[in-house]
Amino acid sequence: MKQYSELDREELLALREDLEKEYEGKQALGLKLDMSRGKPGKSQLDMEADFFNMLNPNVDFNSESGIDCRNYGELTGIHEARKLMAEMIGVKDSQVFIFGNSSLNIMYDTVARSMMFGVCGSTPWCKLEKVKFLCPVPGYDRHFAITEQFGIEMVNIPMNEDGPDMDLVESFVNNDATVKGIWCVPKYSNPAGVTYSAEVVKRFASLKPAADDFRIYWDNAYAIHDLYDDRRDELPEILSACEAAGNPDLVFEFCSTSKVTFPGSGIAAMASSERNLEFIKEQIKIQTIGHDKLNQLRHFRYFKDVNGMKAHMRKHAALIRPKFQVIISALETDLKDLGIGTWTNPNGGYFISFNAMNGCAKEIVKRCKEAGVVLTGAGATYPYKNDPDDSNIRLAPTYPSLEELTQATEIFVLCVKLVSVEKLLEA
Amino acid sequence: MKQYSELDREELLALREDLEKEYEGKQALGLKLDMSRGKPGKSQLDMEADFFNMLNPNVDFNSESGIDCRNYGELTGIHEARKLMAEMIGVKDSQVFIFGNSSLNIMYDTVARSMMFGVCGSTPWCKLEKVKFLCPVPGYDRHFAITEQFGIEMVNIPMNEDGPDMDLVESFVNNDATVKGIWCVPKYSNPAGVTYSAEVVKRFASLKPAADDFRIYWDNAYAIHDLYDDRRDELPEILSACEAAGNPDLVFEFCSTSKVTFPGSGIAAMASSERNLEFIKEQIKIQTIGHDKLNQLRHFRYFKDVNGMKAHMRKHAALIRPKFQVIISALETDLKDLGIGTWTNPNGGYFISFNAMNGCAKEIVKRCKEAGVVLTGAGATYPYKNDPDDSNIRLAPTYPSLEELTQATEIFVLCVKLVSVEKLLEA
Repeated sequence: MKQYSELDREELLALREDLEKEYEGKQALGLKLDMSRGKPGKSQLDMEADFFNMLNPNVDFNSESGIDCRNYGELTGIHEARKLMAEMIGVKDSQVFIFGNSSLNIMYDTVARSMMFGVCGSTPWCKLEKVKFLCPVPGYDRHFAITEQFGIEMVNIPMNEDGPDMDLVESFVNNDATVKGIWCVPKYSNPAGVTYSAEVVKRFASLKPAADDFRIYWDNAYAIHDLYDDRRDELPEILSACEAAGNPDLVFEFCSTSKVTFPGSGIAAMASSERNLEFIKEQIKIQTIGHDKLNQLRHFRYFKDVNGMKAHMRKHAALIRPKFQVIISALETDLKDLGIGTWTNPNGGYFISFNAMNGCAKEIVKRCKEAGVVLTGAGATYPYKNDPDDSNIRLAPTYPSLEELTQATEIFVLCVKLVSVEKLLEA
Repeated sequence: MKQYSELDREELLALREDLEKEYEGKQALGLKLDMSRGKPGKSQLDMEADFFNMLNPNVDFNSESGIDCRNYGELTGIHEARKLMAEMIGVKDSQVFIFGNSSLNIMYDTVARSMMFGVCGSTPWCKLEKVKFLCPVPGYDRHFAITEQFGIEMVNIPMNEDGPDMDLVESFVNNDATVKGIWCVPKYSNPAGVTYSAEVVKRFASLKPAADDFRIYWDNAYAIHDLYDDRRDELPEILSACEAAGNPDLVFEFCSTSKVTFPGSGIAAMASSERNLEFIKEQIKIQTIGHDKLNQLRHFRYFKDVNGMKAHMRKHAALIRPKFQVIISALETDLKDLGIGTWTNPNGGYFISFNAMNGCAKEIVKRCKEAGVVLTGAGATYPYKNDPDDSNIRLAPTYPSLEELTQATEIFVLCVKLVSVEKLLEA
């Protein structure tokens, strides 16, 4: 098969006719499929029987240090839960606070606190004329939504295969004191599946920010979310890298078990230097008396340690892997060598990132929708929902069944072809 | 026994000598007792076996409308949980959003949102020169801590036996546009155990605030927390009263099951007009994907409806009532007619409020501490921890055992006597 760009006008017209017929056929099926969000599939949620038996009338509800987890207290979480989450992301127990059920909520509150109270004594951001965040793109739409809501100006930073463009990051952070943060998903990034290299992590740890209240917002959402046993990424631990570089307070790290146990009913944590945590504690102790320690205890008793979590994640991988493969095989079979799209084949995480020909993403998503397949909105992976190339589409394979994914991918591939042909005919 | 104020100097000196000896004896016991916080006692937490069996591998995890509670979704809570909490406080399901585990956290976030985004389109409070909250006193220290953290000026409003001094409330709210809120615990108030009368609720509902963004912060923490079967307070429902008065958006109401099921592992809710809730939803949808629906489901399945909750609360009352009675009997026996203190005997809630002679509260709390009894800090029931009369002390009977309470109250009574004598000798 020739690349589409090599087809002449007549060939393109003939192809369009065929594709349109095929598309009408798909539309007639009246499907309702959804590849839009990174939601675990039902089979992932059908946990081992034991999880809900971790707490029952025949056990005690005491933490290892003797705290009754059913009562008030322990603002920063019971020690064994802090230890469990610390192991998950490779930091020290003392660097971890446990919060509620959502790392997104912690991130939002962390930005909100900075708006209202500053960072470790700095001027509250709401008193400043301009605050900027760097946003590696494509990235996670919910990060961008937070900074957008607070009126923080977002600056796109291109992602390379080993992480964000660090020349650009350094140039901004080290020179522009209005730059107060950068959103990072450093492992199996959303959506591109990129894991930051050792060199990139080292350069992050060695930043010399113009602003004292600059922090790296390190959303380690997929720390143990490998898809394969034999190919997996390793992310160097950033807090120790920052300490080594003489920058101990540079990072706010976030993680959760939302995609380990249950979205909405997991536990979420923040990791940072003890100085940063002490500052935050002064505020959270007014915000709440404490988070859900019974759920912390339930998680600890179920997993015992990080090995328990990793064993559990291998079961998840076995369920998710075929879903990624269905999509990737279909893309390989149907789109390879056509020159109308590229895609990732990540070692972990929750997404496949697809790049269409420039100017095609919105139309592809629209056509998919009209044929019954909901994708993440085109542009969602960019600040202000504005993908300047109108190219990136995020595919989320985890929630649908294999059969649904097969159908949805067929339609997706068809729409990519159709829209690309139309684009080429316009030219 | 004569009133202390009628004793002459010699009698006071003799009394002091006796009391000091007694005090030294108590100190020698080396007790460690705590009547400081409104924490449920262990026996309250030893729930029926069924609670933790509500979710187990043999049940499904679907809400009544078919939502898998283990997965993302339902930002405002599953319907049956909204209904349960609505019944608890007597409002409509559509007026309730379920949040996380803590109504304090909802209140904090509600004030924080107003600081950053205003209320239903008003100017964000952080852009205003002055923002004031009215604070009925004595009141709840954690409310005051929130407004203090945000730099909101707090104005004391005296509490009467039927609620706050409404002449003063009306005068402030209806004339001063910098007054943006009032903290209320309208039923079994913390600490005085007062329930607002129908007249007071009606006057609240009929306020004509000078500020569009004024709201009543109605912390209905003890809605079903009666101590007795035969004497209980009734609080008129405020949202419908506001609707009737043409003020539908006037109230943000808060409640939780923290003192129904588990502090830290209950569910918390906010009730308000649909207009207010819609405004808030625009912000919380950025803050989180959703709260813990499994815990919502667990609560619903355990209680089924408000009657289940009330039956459960009668069991709590049976455990707590004797604790209140131990203290009240001791006060009656040892302090009645001495003219050195008054106290409440509430029909519900979590506290007894004690008023010492002016200028004595701090010293009483200090003496108690030195004899091994921790009380809530004197002044804590006032904004800025400043009780202008240095008189109010909050007693929290629920956490200690009956035996501990007996010992602690003996020491408390002794310290009240001793400090009062010293005060009279100073005069």
